[in-house]
Amino acid sequence: MPITAPFKLASREFRDEPTVIAVNGTKIGGKQLPVIAGPCAVESTEQIVTIARLVQKAGASFIRGGAFKPRTGPYSFQGYGEEALKMLKAAKDETGLGIVTEVMTPHEVELVGEYTDMFQLGTRNMTNFYLLREVGRAGKPVILKRGMSATIEEWLLAAEYILAEGNPDVILCERGIRTFETHTRNTLDLNAVPVIHELSHLPIVVDPSHGTGIRSLVCDMTKASVAAGADGLLLEVHHDPDHSMTGDGAQSLFPDQFETLMRELQPIAIAVGREI
Amino acid sequence: MPITAPFKLASREFRDEPTVIAVNGTKIGGKQLPVIAGPCAVESTEQIVTIARLVQKAGASFIRGGAFKPRTGPYSFQGYGEEALKMLKAAKDETGLGIVTEVMTPHEVELVGEYTDMFQLGTRNMTNFYLLREVGRAGKPVILKRGMSATIEEWLLAAEYILAEGNPDVILCERGIRTFETHTRNTLDLNAVPVIHELSHLPIVVDPSHGTGIRSLVCDMTKASVAAGADGLLLEVHHDPDHSMTGDGAQSLFPDQFETLMRELQPIAIAVGREI
Amino acid sequence: MPITAPFKLASREFRDEPTVIAVNGTKIGGKQLPVIAGPCAVESTEQIVTIARLVQKAGASFIRGGAFKPRTGPYSFQGYGEEALKMLKAAKDETGLGIVTEVMTPHEVELVGEYTDMFQLGTRNMTNFYLLREVGRAGKPVILKRGMSATIEEWLLAAEYILAEGNPDVILCERGIRTFETHTRNTLDLNAVPVIHELSHLPIVVDPSHGTGIRSLVCDMTKASVAAGADGLLLEVHHDPDHSMTGDGAQSLFPDQFETLMRELQPIAIAVGREI
Amino acid sequence: MPITAPFKLASREFRDEPTVIAVNGTKIGGKQLPVIAGPCAVESTEQIVTIARLVQKAGASFIRGGAFKPRTGPYSFQGYGEEALKMLKAAKDETGLGIVTEVMTPHEVELVGEYTDMFQLGTRNMTNFYLLREVGRAGKPVILKRGMSATIEEWLLAAEYILAEGNPDVILCERGIRTFETHTRNTLDLNAVPVIHELSHLPIVVDPSHGTGIRSLVCDMTKASVAAGADGLLLEVHHDPDHSMTGDGAQSLFPDQFETLMRELQPIAIAVGREI
Repeated sequence: MPITAPFKLASREFRDEPTVIAVNGTKIGGKQLPVIAGPCAVESTEQIVTIARLVQKAGASFIRGGAFKPRTGPYSFQGYGEEALKMLKAAKDETGLGIVTEVMTPHEVELVGEYTDMFQLGTRNMTNFYLLREVGRAGKPVILKRGMSATIEEWLLAAEYILAEGNPDVILCERGIRTFETHTRNTLDLNAVPVIHELSHLPIVVDPSHGTGIRSLVCDMTKASVAAGADGLLLEVHHDPDHSMTGDGAQSLFPDQFETLMRELQPIAIAVGREI
Repeated sequence: MPITAPFKLASREFRDEPTVIAVNGTKIGGKQLPVIAGPCAVESTEQIVTIARLVQKAGASFIRGGAFKPRTGPYSFQGYGEEALKMLKAAKDETGLGIVTEVMTPHEVELVGEYTDMFQLGTRNMTNFYLLREVGRAGKPVILKRGMSATIEEWLLAAEYILAEGNPDVILCERGIRTFETHTRNTLDLNAVPVIHELSHLPIVVDPSHGTGIRSLVCDMTKASVAAGADGLLLEVHHDPDHSMTGDGAQSLFPDQFETLMRELQPIAIAVGREI
Repeated sequence: MPITAPFKLASREFRDEPTVIAVNGTKIGGKQLPVIAGPCAVESTEQIVTIARLVQKAGASFIRGGAFKPRTGPYSFQGYGEEALKMLKAAKDETGLGIVTEVMTPHEVELVGEYTDMFQLGTRNMTNFYLLREVGRAGKPVILKRGMSATIEEWLLAAEYILAEGNPDVILCERGIRTFETHTRNTLDLNAVPVIHELSHLPIVVDPSHGTGIRSLVCDMTKASVAAGADGLLLEVHHDPDHSMTGDGAQSLFPDQFETLMRELQPIAIAVGREI
Repeated sequence: MPITAPFKLASREFRDEPTVIAVNGTKIGGKQLPVIAGPCAVESTEQIVTIARLVQKAGASFIRGGAFKPRTGPYSFQGYGEEALKMLKAAKDETGLGIVTEVMTPHEVELVGEYTDMFQLGTRNMTNFYLLREVGRAGKPVILKRGMSATIEEWLLAAEYILAEGNPDVILCERGIRTFETHTRNTLDLNAVPVIHELSHLPIVVDPSHGTGIRSLVCDMTKASVAAGADGLLLEVHHDPDHSMTGDGAQSLFPDQFETLMRELQPIAIAVGREI
């Protein structure tokens, strides 16, 4: 009996050409780098629609925002749940942007799937194997964040759980690992980008907002992500980060920073054979 | 709005005297150190009953064994599920030992609860917040393993999720953390034992089997666990570890090793004011 | 040409029976567990003589204290140098205790060797290869602390540098590794004790004071060290830790704590076939 | 008495504008990004002259190569010492490239200084405080590699040791940190680049060769380094890496890879306001 099953469906041996995933009219894994932007949590219809318009204008293809929020402690704001899903829907109706939002447990996959275009699985759920299987059966693309101390092999095996259920549309997301460094909240590991491209055909996007946890580092690390070969970006943007409900405001870009960043990314994307 | 809720119900400030939990006639958190022993996975009625008898004879109070197994990859043996729960029941009927087995997802809490005396939540599920809440409502003691890169504060906040639902019977379990060292599978962090006793009233047990991953290290680290002040022990014991189905055989003690260890622990337990 | 030379002289294959080192009338690596105690830094003759008397009375065999102090920044107190060596000599003259003190650079090996009975090489110098070679030629025992992120193999290779110069008297010292945990200053890795005993014939002592950095954890972790099979102990003891010059006072035991600890260690030592 | 001296001379508070260091006609810390390239170890005059010509042609400003090599074990090739310094001199005479080579111990600073244009201090010597002080008095620029588990604060405090001796010409070098990941040899931490720029006026260069340890990852991570704001690059290049004497051949670029990389870096450098 095999003890550790290596990843198969996720490997380059299984499929040599890069997987390209089409969602809401946008391709992920191709020449164009899609940008997924928005606040940490959905706080109100006004908030999410305002931000959706701002990020769309700057070039984003997806609006992101948490409806169900995994929080370290039980007394923190846990998200507005289905109400927040409806607010995301309003933002999509208004802008046409695709929706990306997190699902936390198997029995909410169906509900979240009614609203979202892509499921997000957070770092704390990378080894929630029942959830991996459930989104594997849900027929919508899944963004699978790396566990904060997961090896790359373990991450690809988590993807394998989804693929093995018949869902080929898995997008990996590097979001920072845990190290001894205390200056940053996490240590964004860009080495993961070329390593994943070597080992797997699945697209990999990068989240420099959670990956550093510090607003002033996000722009430089986003540029580095594109240069390293990322297939897309997740960025926290908030029009009023000082009043964010989750305390992640400290890593959210202001809308004008985001707009400037999007412009500055273009020559870097072109330099590595991509477009943004 | 508070951003990070510190643990409250889990803290020494909330309750100064140690929590003592009575299960199946055994107390956890008191003077006596209970030992939970058994194989990684339940493989057959014969296997689990055989091992239950052996560990009972050597002084264990609980039989452990996985029915639902969290595995890194989807192609590894995932456990026999409800069949395995019935085998555990047979072992209990035969020996009177309490049952400890893992539950992996909220919707199986009820099923597992019909058989087990204590729920085990594994390292990969320490941040499965819906599962934490569900066992918080289940009315049975919960052994909460530390996430493999969780800080002690995060671990106590995970316990807080269970406590906050009204279940006061949480037992923490140190099972090794992830470091740069490659000689051992994990790095058993015994510092956690006195730190938890300082910060919390909850009992803490130690799992030197997973904590090291190497049979030849288990006995010394078990002795160290007792000397550090552990409130109990989780130990893998298998009568035929070379034919174990999960590959964890390499860390399982042989029954005679377990018996010798149990004897050798006694003077150490007495030296730190405990009994075993 | 071999790329990575594995350790040879340090290995169990080279020498199966444990190395026992005799220094100043005390054996290290045998049945008896020697205790090396004293302040972080030598601050005055009065201080070191006072502490030497106290720790001797409680059962220590060696007085330790820093004369040359490796400090993270250049503006911290760096030790009193040769003056401090003379103070240590006074403490030895007074009590007969052997001296253990750190040497930081090759050209001071001769000077420090005129005073000390054993050289200490600190965690920050485990890969100072010229220093390793120099103490390898110095003809006195060497306590080699583990680098704070060194693997066990790297540590044994550092020992090999000393052994290869003809000095067989190397004592390894576990002093805590660096992890993501922020509650403790370091994570004392007791797994290293049985691993070293398995791989090497060299004795291993444990330093729970630096290993945790927190006074209230030191006693429990010292007991655990003995139970894990440590061949000796390094402990910080200060009669007035609140006025220590190095800021390590927070991890120093008070003399009466040390005395109580020494008594409480005895049954644990006996339980693992040792004496203290 | 201050316990932990924070960095002062290294800080942005002390000096707001970036430090620019001129060496052998090249500026480090300015608009132009200098490239330091060459083999891990100097193996022969022919080898180092050949590589020097190749990297010069591709645009490098400095030739690097180890004369004194810090090796994990005592039986590995330790470098050709002064002979290798003479070979580096021959390469400089031939090409005009500046020399960068490592110095390992205080008493060799004078010797190495007779040949090199910049001292390199390796990751294993970041806390060799006597060596830091000695190069602080040597009057030549110093490339200070980050210790493999050093925090950014500790790294800047190591730089402070050099600055405090009167040498203002310190260049920091990120070269990968130690994490739990085993696929790569180290984890190149590009977050350090914007963090250092925020905290300090000192230039920071990046070494993606040691930082990853895998040739196929070096080009992507070099591009990411430039995009993140690196002030220069250290790259291993070997014309015959399969016969390298140090086993670092696996991370050395072939000359034609290096040449292509240098061309591909140009638009990225321009995109972030630099030139290469």
